[in-house]
Amino acid sequence: MAIWLLLFSLLFSSNSITIAKIVPAGFPSSIVQPEQLSLATTKTSTNKLYEEKYFTQILDHFNYNPQSYNTFQHRYLINDKHWGGAKNNSPIFVYTGNEGDIEWFTQNTGFMFETAPHFKALLVFIEHRYYGKSIPFGGNKERAYSNSTTLGYLSSTQALADYATLIIDLKNNLTAIDSPVVVFGGSYGGMLAAWFRLKYPHVAIGALASSAPILNFDNITSPFSFNNIITQDFRSESENCYKVIKGSWQKIEETAAKPGGLEILRKSFRICKNYISVNSLEGWLGTAYTYTAMTDYPTPTNFLNPLPAYPIKQMCKAIDHPKTGNNTFEKLYGAANIYYNYTGDAKCFDLIDDSDPHGMASGWTWQACTEMILLTDGNNVDSIFPASNYSYIDRLLYCKDRFDIEPRPSWIPTEFGARHIHRVLKRFGSNMIFFNGLRDPWSGGGVLKDISKSVVAIVAKKGAHHVDLRFSTSEDPKWLQDLRKREVHIISKWISEYYHSLTYSS
Amino acid sequence: MAIWLLLFSLLFSSNSITIAKIVPAGFPSSIVQPEQLSLATTKTSTNKLYEEKYFTQILDHFNYNPQSYNTFQHRYLINDKHWGGAKNNSPIFVYTGNEGDIEWFTQNTGFMFETAPHFKALLVFIEHRYYGKSIPFGGNKERAYSNSTTLGYLSSTQALADYATLIIDLKNNLTAIDSPVVVFGGSYGGMLAAWFRLKYPHVAIGALASSAPILNFDNITSPFSFNNIITQDFRSESENCYKVIKGSWQKIEETAAKPGGLEILRKSFRICKNYISVNSLEGWLGTAYTYTAMTDYPTPTNFLNPLPAYPIKQMCKAIDHPKTGNNTFEKLYGAANIYYNYTGDAKCFDLIDDSDPHGMASGWTWQACTEMILLTDGNNVDSIFPASNYSYIDRLLYCKDRFDIEPRPSWIPTEFGARHIHRVLKRFGSNMIFFNGLRDPWSGGGVLKDISKSVVAIVAKKGAHHVDLRFSTSEDPKWLQDLRKREVHIISKWISEYYHSLTYSS
Repeated sequence: MAIWLLLFSLLFSSNSITIAKIVPAGFPSSIVQPEQLSLATTKTSTNKLYEEKYFTQILDHFNYNPQSYNTFQHRYLINDKHWGGAKNNSPIFVYTGNEGDIEWFTQNTGFMFETAPHFKALLVFIEHRYYGKSIPFGGNKERAYSNSTTLGYLSSTQALADYATLIIDLKNNLTAIDSPVVVFGGSYGGMLAAWFRLKYPHVAIGALASSAPILNFDNITSPFSFNNIITQDFRSESENCYKVIKGSWQKIEETAAKPGGLEILRKSFRICKNYISVNSLEGWLGTAYTYTAMTDYPTPTNFLNPLPAYPIKQMCKAIDHPKTGNNTFEKLYGAANIYYNYTGDAKCFDLIDDSDPHGMASGWTWQACTEMILLTDGNNVDSIFPASNYSYIDRLLYCKDRFDIEPRPSWIPTEFGARHIHRVLKRFGSNMIFFNGLRDPWSGGGVLKDISKSVVAIVAKKGAHHVDLRFSTSEDPKWLQDLRKREVHIISKWISEYYHSLTYSS
Repeated sequence: MAIWLLLFSLLFSSNSITIAKIVPAGFPSSIVQPEQLSLATTKTSTNKLYEEKYFTQILDHFNYNPQSYNTFQHRYLINDKHWGGAKNNSPIFVYTGNEGDIEWFTQNTGFMFETAPHFKALLVFIEHRYYGKSIPFGGNKERAYSNSTTLGYLSSTQALADYATLIIDLKNNLTAIDSPVVVFGGSYGGMLAAWFRLKYPHVAIGALASSAPILNFDNITSPFSFNNIITQDFRSESENCYKVIKGSWQKIEETAAKPGGLEILRKSFRICKNYISVNSLEGWLGTAYTYTAMTDYPTPTNFLNPLPAYPIKQMCKAIDHPKTGNNTFEKLYGAANIYYNYTGDAKCFDLIDDSDPHGMASGWTWQACTEMILLTDGNNVDSIFPASNYSYIDRLLYCKDRFDIEPRPSWIPTEFGARHIHRVLKRFGSNMIFFNGLRDPWSGGGVLKDISKSVVAIVAKKGAHHVDLRFSTSEDPKWLQDLRKREVHIISKWISEYYHSLTYSS
C-alpha cells in the first residue's frame, strides 16, 4: 500500500539525491502524532474480528543448506464465524499479506468480512515474512534486519511459498482438503495474490488482485505514469490548485535560501522545533499529495491517516480558498493539514519520525533494493512535482550504500512475467480479477483490460487504491457498490464451477 | 532417466537396508567396461550436432544473501542450422536438461533435431546445474559436492529459474524477443519441462513432457506401481520367464549362504575377482531387469547400454532357452548378458563401479534426499522382485546418514501440485503434451488422460521411457511414427496460434 513509494524521489532531480530520497518502505516521513497514526491499528482490535495463530514456517523453501532448515513463527489471523465447515467443502478466503503488520491490512479489508456470510467462508489473513510479528531468527527483529545475510530470506517468492505451505497445512489440519481457496490482496498484497494464483493454481482456485501494479516492471509502464496520475487527480479538481502546488517548490527553495528563510518556512507550516530542511519539508508535502491521491476515497477513511471523503477535493478547496489570498505557504499548509491533521489535534508537525506503527521495519527498503524495482519517480514538464528524470542508477547507488547489495531488476519479470501479459495469459490461467481505481497513481501499472473470459479487469474511474476491499459504508457511491457486487458475482462463479468439477471430474 | 532409480531398494525389505540400497543417482552399480558405457556420450560428439556455450548464471535466484550473488558457468548446447532467424520470429526449441551431462541427453533427443527443419527451429539444450560441466563453486566438482552447504543450491526450482533466466537472456542477445519457445524434456527433464510451462508461461508457449512421472509424489501413485509394471513387462513376454526370475532371489540367497556359495555365484555370473556379495549381485541383476524395462525400445538402441530391439523379449528368450535346462543361474546370466554385454566384448563383470561417464556425480542422490521423494520400491506378492514394503523411513535414515539432512517430501506437491491434476488444470494452463509408454515402469506416475483440449496425454501401449524423443530409425513401428506425427501436429498448432496472437493481440 502506501508504504512502498519512493517518497522523496518525487521531488528531486537525479542531481540532488539524498539518502532521504530512497525510503521506499518508510511511512510518510513526517507525521502528526504517533498515537493518531496508530488508530488504524488499534481501533478494531478489540472487536474480536479474528483470532491470532502461529505456524512453524521453514526459512528457505528453495535450497537445502543446513541454515535453510531453520524455522520461524509465522503469524496468521483467522475468523471462522461464518464458515460452513469442512464437511460442506465451504470456501476459505485467504488474504496474502503485504509489507506490514497483518492486523493493519486485515482491518482495512472489510470486503472479506462482509462477504464471508454469503459465501460461508473461513477467513485467513497471513502475514508476510519479516513484517509484523512474523520475524525469522527467533523473532528477533534487530537480528533479522541486521545485515544482508539475515535479510536475504526476505523475498516475494519465499513469501508465496510460505502461503502455499501454510494453506496446505491448515487445510490438512481442518480436514478441509476439498474446500476451495480464493486469495485476496491489495497493492503489493494484490501482486502476491495474482502471482499466487499463477504459480499455485493447485492451492487457490482464484484471485482478487486489487490495485496490483504487476506491470510496473521492466519499463512496461512509463516511470512518469505514477506522478502523471497524481497530477491529473489534482488538476481534475481545480487548475488553480494544481498551479499553486506546481509553483510552490521554487518558492519554498527560494525562501529557504534566504537568511532566516527556514525559520519562515518552519512557522508557516507549524513545524515543531526539532528539525527542518528544505528536502524534508518538500518530502513532507509531496508525501501528503501522493498518499492523498492514493487514498482519494469517496467516504471518510482512516487507512494511512484519518481523512475526509474525497480528500483531494478538500485539499484543493483549502488551496483555492479566497481567505488565503496569494499566500502560497498558507494555502499549502491548509492542504497538508487535511492529510496530517484532519482530526485537528496536532499543535505542530515533526518532519522526522522513527515510529513504526504498522510493523514495517525497513523491510520494504530491502525489497525495493533487491527485487521490487518499481520506478515511479519520473516527472515530465507538466508534473505537479518539479520536472525530473527517473533513475535506476540512483536506486543502485543507494542500495550499494545502504545494504552493500545490487538490485536484480530483471528478476521479477523473469519469475512472474509482465511483458505482453495479454498475449501470455489469453490462453493460460483463469479465475483472476484485477481491480484498479484510476485515481490511484499505481493504476498505471495495473491490468486495465480483460485478458480472457475468466481473467478480467474491473476499472473504476473514480476509484482509489484498493477501494473495493475496504469496509462498506452507508455513503458508498453506487459505482462502488456495483463493482463489489460484480466481484462477488465472479467469485461465486469460480466457486460453483469448482464444486461442479468436484462432482464430475476425477 | 534410468539414473534416478533407487536401484537396490528393489530387492530388499526394509529390514535389510544397506548403504548400497539407496544410490538413487548411481548409474547401474555394475557395468561391463567403462569405455563401452561411454559410447553414448561420445558416439556423435564429432558430428557437430551442436556448439557448446556458457552462460554466467546466478547461484541463488530466490534469496539475496551475499553468497546468493555468486555465479557459475552454466553450459548449454546450441544448433542454429535450421533456424529461420529472429526476423521471422522462428521458434526456439529448448531441452530442459536433467540429472546428467547435457550431451548425453542431447544425443538421445533426436526428435528435436529431426523436427527442426520443419519448424525452422533453433535448438538449445540446457544443462542442469551441478551436472556435467555446469558445476557451481568455480566448476570445482569436489567442492560443490563436498557437503550440504555447497550442495544446498541443487534443487529443481533453482534449475527452472536457471532455464528462464538463460532463455530470456539468449532471446535478448539474439534479438529474438518474439520467437516462441517450446520446451522439451524426458523423465526428470520431462517433469521440468511440464513444470516450466506451468511456472513460466511467459517464457515457453508449450511443453512436450515425455515420460514425466509428476504424479509419483504424495502417495498419488502407488509405490507398488513401478515394480508392478516391470513385472507385467516380463510376464507379458513369458510366464516362465517371470517365474524363473521371481524364484531366483531365494536360490541366490540359499547358494550364498552355503560354504563356497559366493564362489559358485561368482563363477556362474562371470563376476570379476574384485568383489562379490549377495546384495551387490542382486542389485546388479535387478538393475538389468529394471533398466531393460525402461528402455524396452522397438529398435536397437544405446541409451543406457547397447541393447537389441525389444530387449525384454530377448532376455526372456535367454531365460526360456531349452539349452539352459533347469540351470537358473545360467538362465539369469543369459538375461543379464543382454543388458550388460550385448556387444559380447566383456570377459567378466564388475559389481562395483565408480566411473561416471554421464556426468551425474552424486547429484541425484542429493535430490532424492531432499525433494525428489519418488517412492517406487514397493513389491507386492506377485512382484518379479521379492515382496517388500516401500519405506519412507529408510530414505530418511539413509539421508540423515549420508548428508545429515532430512528430506522434505511435501515440498514438490506444495510447489508444483500433483493431486487432482485433472481438476486443477482443466481450467488452468494450456499447451502441454504428456507422453507415456506403458512398458515404462515410470508411466504409472504419468498423466495418462487428456486434461483439456490443449493439455493432452499421448499414451503408447508398447512404448518405453521417452521413446518418442529418440532419433527415428527405418525400423520404427507405425505406432511410433504416428505418435511423433501427432506431436509435431500439436506443436505446430501451438506455434500458429502464437503467431496469430502476435498479430492480433496487444
